Amino acid sequence: MNQKTPNDDDKQVAEVNQEALYRIFTIPEAPDSTLGKIEKHLSENLMGFLGEHIVAREKPLQEIERDFEQAGIPEDPQFVSEHTEFLLNKLVAHSVHTASPKFIGHMTSALPYFLLPLAKLMVGLNQNLVKIETSKAFTPLERNVIGMLHHLVYQQDAGFYNRWMHSAQHSLGAFCSGGTVANMTALWVARNQLLKADGDFAGIAADGLAAGLAHYNYKRLVVLVSERGHYSLAKAADVLGIGRRNLVAVATDENNRIKIDALRQTCDQVQQEGGKVLAIVGVAGTTETGHVDPLAEMAAIAQDYGVHFHVDAAWGGATLLSSRYRELLQGVEQADSVTIDAHKQMYVPMGAGMVLFKSPSLVKSIEHHAEYIIRQGSKDLGAHSMEGSRPGMAMMVFSALHVIGRRGYQLLIDNSLEKARYFAELISEQDDFEVITEPELCLLTYRFVPKRVKQALKQASAEQVEQLTPHLNALTRYIQKRQRESGKSFVSRTKLTPAQYFHEPSVVFRVVLANPLTTNDMLAEIIEEQRQIAEKATSLRGALHTEMRELGMVIDNR
Amino acid sequence: MNQKTPNDDDKQVAEVNQEALYRIFTIPEAPDSTLGKIEKHLSENLMGFLGEHIVAREKPLQEIERDFEQAGIPEDPQFVSEHTEFLLNKLVAHSVHTASPKFIGHMTSALPYFLLPLAKLMVGLNQNLVKIETSKAFTPLERNVIGMLHHLVYQQDAGFYNRWMHSAQHSLGAFCSGGTVANMTALWVARNQLLKADGDFAGIAADGLAAGLAHYNYKRLVVLVSERGHYSLAKAADVLGIGRRNLVAVATDENNRIKIDALRQTCDQVQQEGGKVLAIVGVAGTTETGHVDPLAEMAAIAQDYGVHFHVDAAWGGATLLSSRYRELLQGVEQADSVTIDAHKQMYVPMGAGMVLFKSPSLVKSIEHHAEYIIRQGSKDLGAHSMEGSRPGMAMMVFSALHVIGRRGYQLLIDNSLEKARYFAELISEQDDFEVITEPELCLLTYRFVPKRVKQALKQASAEQVEQLTPHLNALTRYIQKRQRESGKSFVSRTKLTPAQYFHEPSVVFRVVLANPLTTNDMLAEIIEEQRQIAEKATSLRGALHTEMRELGMVIDNR
Repeated sequence: MNQKTPNDDDKQVAEVNQEALYRIFTIPEAPDSTLGKIEKHLSENLMGFLGEHIVAREKPLQEIERDFEQAGIPEDPQFVSEHTEFLLNKLVAHSVHTASPKFIGHMTSALPYFLLPLAKLMVGLNQNLVKIETSKAFTPLERNVIGMLHHLVYQQDAGFYNRWMHSAQHSLGAFCSGGTVANMTALWVARNQLLKADGDFAGIAADGLAAGLAHYNYKRLVVLVSERGHYSLAKAADVLGIGRRNLVAVATDENNRIKIDALRQTCDQVQQEGGKVLAIVGVAGTTETGHVDPLAEMAAIAQDYGVHFHVDAAWGGATLLSSRYRELLQGVEQADSVTIDAHKQMYVPMGAGMVLFKSPSLVKSIEHHAEYIIRQGSKDLGAHSMEGSRPGMAMMVFSALHVIGRRGYQLLIDNSLEKARYFAELISEQDDFEVITEPELCLLTYRFVPKRVKQALKQASAEQVEQLTPHLNALTRYIQKRQRESGKSFVSRTKLTPAQYFHEPSVVFRVVLANPLTTNDMLAEIIEEQRQIAEKATSLRGALHTEMRELGMVIDNR
Repeated sequence: MNQKTPNDDDKQVAEVNQEALYRIFTIPEAPDSTLGKIEKHLSENLMGFLGEHIVAREKPLQEIERDFEQAGIPEDPQFVSEHTEFLLNKLVAHSVHTASPKFIGHMTSALPYFLLPLAKLMVGLNQNLVKIETSKAFTPLERNVIGMLHHLVYQQDAGFYNRWMHSAQHSLGAFCSGGTVANMTALWVARNQLLKADGDFAGIAADGLAAGLAHYNYKRLVVLVSERGHYSLAKAADVLGIGRRNLVAVATDENNRIKIDALRQTCDQVQQEGGKVLAIVGVAGTTETGHVDPLAEMAAIAQDYGVHFHVDAAWGGATLLSSRYRELLQGVEQADSVTIDAHKQMYVPMGAGMVLFKSPSLVKSIEHHAEYIIRQGSKDLGAHSMEGSRPGMAMMVFSALHVIGRRGYQLLIDNSLEKARYFAELISEQDDFEVITEPELCLLTYRFVPKRVKQALKQASAEQVEQLTPHLNALTRYIQKRQRESGKSFVSRTKLTPAQYFHEPSVVFRVVLANPLTTNDMLAEIIEEQRQIAEKATSLRGALHTEMRELGMVIDNR
């Protein structure tokens, strides 16, 4: 008798006050409601709001999970105010203060204030950019944004953009949720272009990859990128049916740039073995070290071998906005496709990736239509995108480009790069820190090394480095973790194989200095905090020193 | 001498007021600024804001494009107020009023008010859900949301969710930007699971599709879906290397549901020809007619043939929230994977797709790691997603589920379905309209047919229908376009092959009745407006009548 019948349920549903329910669609949150107050606070003082509501000291993930373990959808409606309290105490409190100027371990940064109300406008308008019918002016707007980024990279003349930017059958790129989809789209286009329709072969889009390989008599398709390439490329190789093993990592030089000779050799080898290089991918700002591949030289090789040249500038692409530093990406304008994320160094919220195509016709290879949408001849953006329904994020990029302006961006970017150089210098001046990779853009890596160890390392043999590095790695991990947990500042960490240390896998701190609110004083504070954490790591330091003694490396007492 | 040198440029950059630039990161928009006022307006009265700022009468796209034709990024910063005026007049004015209760041609609807400030909170927090380090509590939150939707579909017990929902090595699904990526992810998982590592074969993820087909000795992979399947499936077949031709469209019955016999026959045929069915896809709410495939019968066939069964419930999945109507999707709980979009019938803003997996281990086939992110053993969501960096949209779904509650959703969904039934009845009562497809969920199609034609069609032969339909199609297109342009209301259109009209390709109006603010009176107004537009289409009606006379079909004068 205890079981719920549909009838009982219907009655209970009827008890849900229909008026109250409809009110959420028609009556706004009152300014003095909990949510109203929150909104006011974050509108008036975002940093204050985040600083006040995000608790500094880290709560273990397992504890947080306890607040998110009810899989049943609650039966009854909850008051917005009550729910908001929950969000504040359980979610916001334990989120990450990505905008903090002392959280320099991410590629996220502080956002300009004006984007907050615009985000609300975007959500209120709730356009769907897959088609004109649900986006109207947002479609030309997005095409314009893609055109502006295309111009930033390729600098074609006004005639070019007049002709192609709004052409239904063409596209200068695609707006994506992020760099991963952008990279995937670029390789999708390259793959379909390579294995295009030919004679009695209808093309890979229609007949599939295996038929394409058979028709063109290729044993396999290969994508070449430096060993510092982003993991999204491996994922793309998987998704596109190419296979992760066919994403071949080419060796890098001591500055984490692809070795041009090795690249050429690999191209030759793939060909000799009956394979076909589908694409060469240049990295403009590696995720781990921020270095830029020699793009012009790579473009020349791509041309020699008749191969699609893609540049993954998801992070570094914004550097093109600086006329002082854009030459660091010299050669990018020769790429067939380029990925840029506006939510990285362009100060736009998460969800704004873009892929740009040099040739407006390249997207033909992925064009698709349907009866009720993206009809032939329409200007619907969905005809050339991997995603379907999408929000109007392009507005955020459009507005940021206008309100900040090219020169404003240059100022931000120049300052970031110069801050990174300053920080590298500051680190080098310390007895007990060392720079592992110098900043080319605004990213650098470094680590803490006790003073005596730092001195001893200078003359250490390969074997000594091999023995010491695991201890240093443990120390770096320890410092990074404790610093994160204490909640005052955050640097990230990764593992590199530095040439100066015999390519021994070394854990390093990694910082990205894109937040305009980060000051030089804060940088000094961050390394001081790391030093203090290191002081307390007595057992790890003890083990390190024991190891040194065993290796016969001199240790002064200190 | 007129050329700009880097030095000149540097000077001009220096002239950009650095203080002013930094202020956009530190000083909020004043409440009485243009943007502040806009925000206040949309916060206090979203419908009023949209109604006031979106101009009703449609401006030709070519004219709108003129406001978005400058490909150069502006050099100098623009005042926020000035830029906001531009957005209001050039973008917002010509966007689409997707929330309007008389715009019933889309799958977008009005949004609950509380989601607007929450959207702002989400952007202010600017979390990146690819990894714990940049999302912390948002990671368990998103896993919880996926768990809630999983429970909605599969209804496992609490022990199941305790065990799997927060397990690092497992995943009950993936949050995506939309249904297209969700469908793609499902087929990616199915493909990799089918062609998994085996003996000396390292698996498709590593070695690629062609090697996988060769190892398992399959001539081709085939995905089966009804001819009403969403176009994203063809796109997925392309992206995944399967090929669009290998997405085989199975015939549907007079209710747009897949023919079970035809499905079984196709399975047999593929096998006999040496192919392998990769997946059978059931549609739970076709985009064009809103019909639901016989999911339980499809599941049985999938089981017989040992094939992955995916259900695309992007639009219809929300029906599961109604205990009265969830039986319409009976069998969905047998699917290996299910796509649901929260931005469709769950009243959440654009950008909230989900794919759910029955088995928590299925994602193993697409798992990936890197050194600096989504490390082995971490709970980083990025290890099992197609996308990389992603915003915290899951919060919007979480909040909507709590504030509306299961019973609140049921009320909304039941009302939508019943409104659709009411509208179908209203249409049937008219002399000069006819329902083409009855609503199973809240979607129906219909068309205007002049009274005499409607009568004559009842006894018309196949040949007569064939001759008349192009004229009716032209009339339907005309009405739909004029109505859209006049800006008061909007229905969409598509082309169907109705059984009752000898499968003649027929253009129809298509309406989705999910907006809770749409009233019965508005529905009456919409068809009245269509009737009035039709009255004025004298030449199209003349051609129709001439055709009828030539076909010897009786026409009374009216």
